[in-house]
Amino acid sequence: MLSFESDYTTGAHPKVLERLLETNLDPQSGYGTDAYCESARGKIRAACGCPEADVWFLTGGTQTNAVAAAALLESWQGVVAAETGHVSAHEAGAIEHTGHKVLTLPQRGGKLCAAELEAYLAAFFADGNHDHMVFPGMVYISHPTEYGTLYTKDELIRLADVCRRYELPLYCDGARLACALASCDTDVTLPELALLCDVFTIGGTKCGALCGEALVFPRRRAPRQFLTIVKQNGALLAKGRLLGVQFDALFTDGLYEKLGAHAVGMAGRLKELLREKGLPFFLESSTNQQFVILENGFLERFQRGAAVSFWERFDEAHTVVRFATSWSTAPEDLERLSAWIDECRA
Amino acid sequence: MLSFESDYTTGAHPKVLERLLETNLDPQSGYGTDAYCESARGKIRAACGCPEADVWFLTGGTQTNAVAAAALLESWQGVVAAETGHVSAHEAGAIEHTGHKVLTLPQRGGKLCAAELEAYLAAFFADGNHDHMVFPGMVYISHPTEYGTLYTKDELIRLADVCRRYELPLYCDGARLACALASCDTDVTLPELALLCDVFTIGGTKCGALCGEALVFPRRRAPRQFLTIVKQNGALLAKGRLLGVQFDALFTDGLYEKLGAHAVGMAGRLKELLREKGLPFFLESSTNQQFVILENGFLERFQRGAAVSFWERFDEAHTVVRFATSWSTAPEDLERLSAWIDECRA
Amino acid sequence: MLSFESDYTTGAHPKVLERLLETNLDPQSGYGTDAYCESARGKIRAACGCPEADVWFLTGGTQTNAVAAAALLESWQGVVAAETGHVSAHEAGAIEHTGHKVLTLPQRGGKLCAAELEAYLAAFFADGNHDHMVFPGMVYISHPTEYGTLYTKDELIRLADVCRRYELPLYCDGARLACALASCDTDVTLPELALLCDVFTIGGTKCGALCGEALVFPRRRAPRQFLTIVKQNGALLAKGRLLGVQFDALFTDGLYEKLGAHAVGMAGRLKELLREKGLPFFLESSTNQQFVILENGFLERFQRGAAVSFWERFDEAHTVVRFATSWSTAPEDLERLSAWIDECRA
Amino acid sequence: MLSFESDYTTGAHPKVLERLLETNLDPQSGYGTDAYCESARGKIRAACGCPEADVWFLTGGTQTNAVAAAALLESWQGVVAAETGHVSAHEAGAIEHTGHKVLTLPQRGGKLCAAELEAYLAAFFADGNHDHMVFPGMVYISHPTEYGTLYTKDELIRLADVCRRYELPLYCDGARLACALASCDTDVTLPELALLCDVFTIGGTKCGALCGEALVFPRRRAPRQFLTIVKQNGALLAKGRLLGVQFDALFTDGLYEKLGAHAVGMAGRLKELLREKGLPFFLESSTNQQFVILENGFLERFQRGAAVSFWERFDEAHTVVRFATSWSTAPEDLERLSAWIDECRA
Repeated sequence: MLSFESDYTTGAHPKVLERLLETNLDPQSGYGTDAYCESARGKIRAACGCPEADVWFLTGGTQTNAVAAAALLESWQGVVAAETGHVSAHEAGAIEHTGHKVLTLPQRGGKLCAAELEAYLAAFFADGNHDHMVFPGMVYISHPTEYGTLYTKDELIRLADVCRRYELPLYCDGARLACALASCDTDVTLPELALLCDVFTIGGTKCGALCGEALVFPRRRAPRQFLTIVKQNGALLAKGRLLGVQFDALFTDGLYEKLGAHAVGMAGRLKELLREKGLPFFLESSTNQQFVILENGFLERFQRGAAVSFWERFDEAHTVVRFATSWSTAPEDLERLSAWIDECRA
Repeated sequence: MLSFESDYTTGAHPKVLERLLETNLDPQSGYGTDAYCESARGKIRAACGCPEADVWFLTGGTQTNAVAAAALLESWQGVVAAETGHVSAHEAGAIEHTGHKVLTLPQRGGKLCAAELEAYLAAFFADGNHDHMVFPGMVYISHPTEYGTLYTKDELIRLADVCRRYELPLYCDGARLACALASCDTDVTLPELALLCDVFTIGGTKCGALCGEALVFPRRRAPRQFLTIVKQNGALLAKGRLLGVQFDALFTDGLYEKLGAHAVGMAGRLKELLREKGLPFFLESSTNQQFVILENGFLERFQRGAAVSFWERFDEAHTVVRFATSWSTAPEDLERLSAWIDECRA
Repeated sequence: MLSFESDYTTGAHPKVLERLLETNLDPQSGYGTDAYCESARGKIRAACGCPEADVWFLTGGTQTNAVAAAALLESWQGVVAAETGHVSAHEAGAIEHTGHKVLTLPQRGGKLCAAELEAYLAAFFADGNHDHMVFPGMVYISHPTEYGTLYTKDELIRLADVCRRYELPLYCDGARLACALASCDTDVTLPELALLCDVFTIGGTKCGALCGEALVFPRRRAPRQFLTIVKQNGALLAKGRLLGVQFDALFTDGLYEKLGAHAVGMAGRLKELLREKGLPFFLESSTNQQFVILENGFLERFQRGAAVSFWERFDEAHTVVRFATSWSTAPEDLERLSAWIDECRA
Repeated sequence: MLSFESDYTTGAHPKVLERLLETNLDPQSGYGTDAYCESARGKIRAACGCPEADVWFLTGGTQTNAVAAAALLESWQGVVAAETGHVSAHEAGAIEHTGHKVLTLPQRGGKLCAAELEAYLAAFFADGNHDHMVFPGMVYISHPTEYGTLYTKDELIRLADVCRRYELPLYCDGARLACALASCDTDVTLPELALLCDVFTIGGTKCGALCGEALVFPRRRAPRQFLTIVKQNGALLAKGRLLGVQFDALFTDGLYEKLGAHAVGMAGRLKELLREKGLPFFLESSTNQQFVILENGFLERFQRGAAVSFWERFDEAHTVVRFATSWSTAPEDLERLSAWIDECRA
């Protein structure tokens, strides 16, 4: 069975596993106080160009988003996000579970538009009295977005500018950040992202780790007693080393960037292949997720030999599906895919 | 530095790591739907003698306790626990964070006493009207307890009997269950535990895994839409295989039992050693945690070369500390400890 | 100062106050167990034609909506509402504060459209797997809506039909129900509403009481231990009699209907007057709230002598405001308003 | 039927009702922005000797305690209270429902002991690391306590001193504050209470009002966006005037003090009567609640003609019951009680 259903179908990159093996018997204190977490923090600070950054490691993306929102928001505040933002649509209400509303704005290719954000904030804070409404308390974006699209540096600068004028932290969910950084269509580097965002995550799970997201506060400390908040949310790993060792490996010798480059490179070849086969794209993505419109009958046959993800219904006769590549996608996978598409059509 | 501070200072047992390596490139669907989780579920069902058991894998103990309580309780119910129960004292209020009260009863050697539980429940449901109070909705015990002590089969039978009469699920936190099963002082087997409890956990983190707890519903399905509940609590791992592979390894060829036996065996030798040195025990434990009363001056010197955990103040001049052994404690660690104690006294 | 800013600017109808005086010294048990609550329940059951109805009294609308949602929903479910629904927009996130998401659909004149509801539910339950999304758990409508508009009987029948097919309770917020029932443009009676909805409220605060909403479960008991849920949400009044006496008065000799008729009658005269003055309406409402578009300069002068509510910005130069009438609006208020509009224009 | 079951069995004092009648038709804005709330705030500031106090009005005691705790605590903090504190035992888990733990200390005659509080805080903040525990975030006391007992000025000074040293707000639940102030056994005045506590409530419901508690921040503003917090908790009354008018009446011409004096005076005569009849007291109370030990057979007969509250089981043959007096207890009630006790014994 060919697998393009997601970028978390295989385990960790061999160098990550190797480092887990090497360090396995070295005794370390728990809960993120170990030497590997400390080393990984240093390497992430260097990669971000933020020597003062406060870096935490959590296990998953939904968890990290919810814990950060809970810690950053006052009880009367919510998270502003695009209607397609992961926190809005696909986290089973984890944000609301912490008591906070997700305040949605329209998505533009999966992205928040700075002008629309500003118009919303201006109206909220200018007209009348909004004491009976949920106050915007932070702004959530994802880079790449849930549709594989990317913010340009200019778009980020404008979003950051709006956020700073309204004193709202700009939070960037980087679950697939390696792929954003590796895209040939981006002008945003990691230090630039760190400069423009107030909090962001560096995704491990979908970029070569077994699990783990780094939560980075580039210019300030995490909220007070953050470790207790993490614990209270069931998000504190006893063997924090598991996360530290993995991020230490990912941020050694540019491995994180290389894995992103590999996934994006494979996605480029995938795009070419799908284009050659005449399969129409739902939207243009320069990262590792590709959204394609398939005729329902073809899709049924296709799925018997290749796994892709259902995304949404396109019309009565067609469906949008997602193909994802990852650090472990091999050239042969694409060759086999090409043959299988032909076979499904024959 | 000698390390006896906890049973989560080292990584995973080599066989667990080996299995992670072997399976690393095999593509599998996410969120616990992979073949390794399925295989591990089958092995756990067999080990428990519960062919119908519903088995879930989560990453940590506090997380598992909180998610289970949230899923099992009505909003107007709380968890009954000993005042020293982990959910009561050491989870940063994770249960309350889900909106539920922990209703505490006195601890007897770290344990809940069936007669005291019954007296509390009888009074609650018999006298007057308790509509303004939190209703008991489940009973939490840990085995071994936070003090390393164990319930006897007879004690568990009596607790289970009280719970069934009041229709309250009996939940057992088995974070260190391998050590309980391996104690030479227990008459409780895993199938018996599964028979007497309505829900229980099999701890991986403290018994040879990098992370992971199995949550077992031995005779019924988990609450409806449990996967969504897990997701909503930020507890759903994308690469669920990480947990499945580890538990699959732990429940192959009796590895889980062997790791418990090793930790408990080392604890037995540790007890002997401490007794020979004339160090007084705070209480009698037959599992891998040993609680010892140390004079404060001695403790200060001792900690320069050996890590143990602060437990509680004993009196002005003495402190209770915990020594923990694990699957990775080696005989040489005990020899070095013996020498270090002598040196600290000299 | 003329007051049209809301329907809660004055106290209670004199007959309600009179009944509070008459019953003041009669000792009664607390928490809604008094004879007046019991009598009011009986009268409400009769007025609804629901002899089996379970009726509860709470103090305010937001409170009642939030307590009902918390009690009716599973943790993994949310409330479906129009984007302008009170629970969605103007309750400061009270629903999310109980941990539940508000799932919004477009508003059509303030109303939910049955066809759009069905399309959403059909897609949710048919396509793919939605375990990572919040499940729809109940459907919220308001009658009249936040824009003073009304559902027709046919619209309610279609909504109820969709809800029943998907086994979702249909909840109707009747904060201004007296005005809905009294409109000359409605074909929905109280017994019909009770037949079509699974839960609904009968608003007191905005219809002649000092405070109070009746929460009616027409054909079943409230969720188990509902009194404890109410208490836990801080919504249980010690002197429950305050609510019982008021609803008893409102449902004696058709007072509730009469107060609605008065408010709506005054609104009809207000509409005529505003139309004569050439002031444009934002939308057509046949109840006690009228939404009018005012030029900003005029509005500024106007507000010096008459209070109305800011609703929303219409365009750069105009604002939508709300005029509300109530049981206490007098014909002279309208005469004075007419004169004041003329004066502001002169 | 004689009624001594609680101090909320009758309505409001006639002067309170009178004021509701007088002000009924005067139009006022909603949500506590009316002139009566403003006037009541001024009178309360004067009575407390706190010209800068921020005063809010809510409807009930449990609601007020929960909203205040939610607003004052960080997510990782809990409320310290005596095990018999209302927030701990009789509010159906309302505090936990907001996500916070109640951290209990032993009760001494229903009171928190300053020395025990200090010992707990000293141990918490001194020994080891408590990042995995709930941090104390505020201290809750009630005056009078749930057992009718009172803190002395000296006890309050010592509690306040401990709280200030640990930077924890001292919160006093004054649900029955009028009775505390009127006791002949107290040396604590309202200005002194205001000086020693950081937040406190002045109970209306149990001291002459239909409903209502004043929440007083004597020396600072309520937490930011407190109105939104109140709304979010379903605790914001649309007709806030209902609370303002009542507190305005209660704080005019010393009415609040007089109602307390009446209730306490009647309780004094009740004590005498019960003592004469030879009925033993469970504890000594100088306020309006009296706790008496009755033989179960006598209690059964007695309750056929007189209502009292079940408090707790004393032993197999006896029960502790509570007699409460209020502003509306009349001398004839005591005469009838005396006769009824005799009749039950005959």
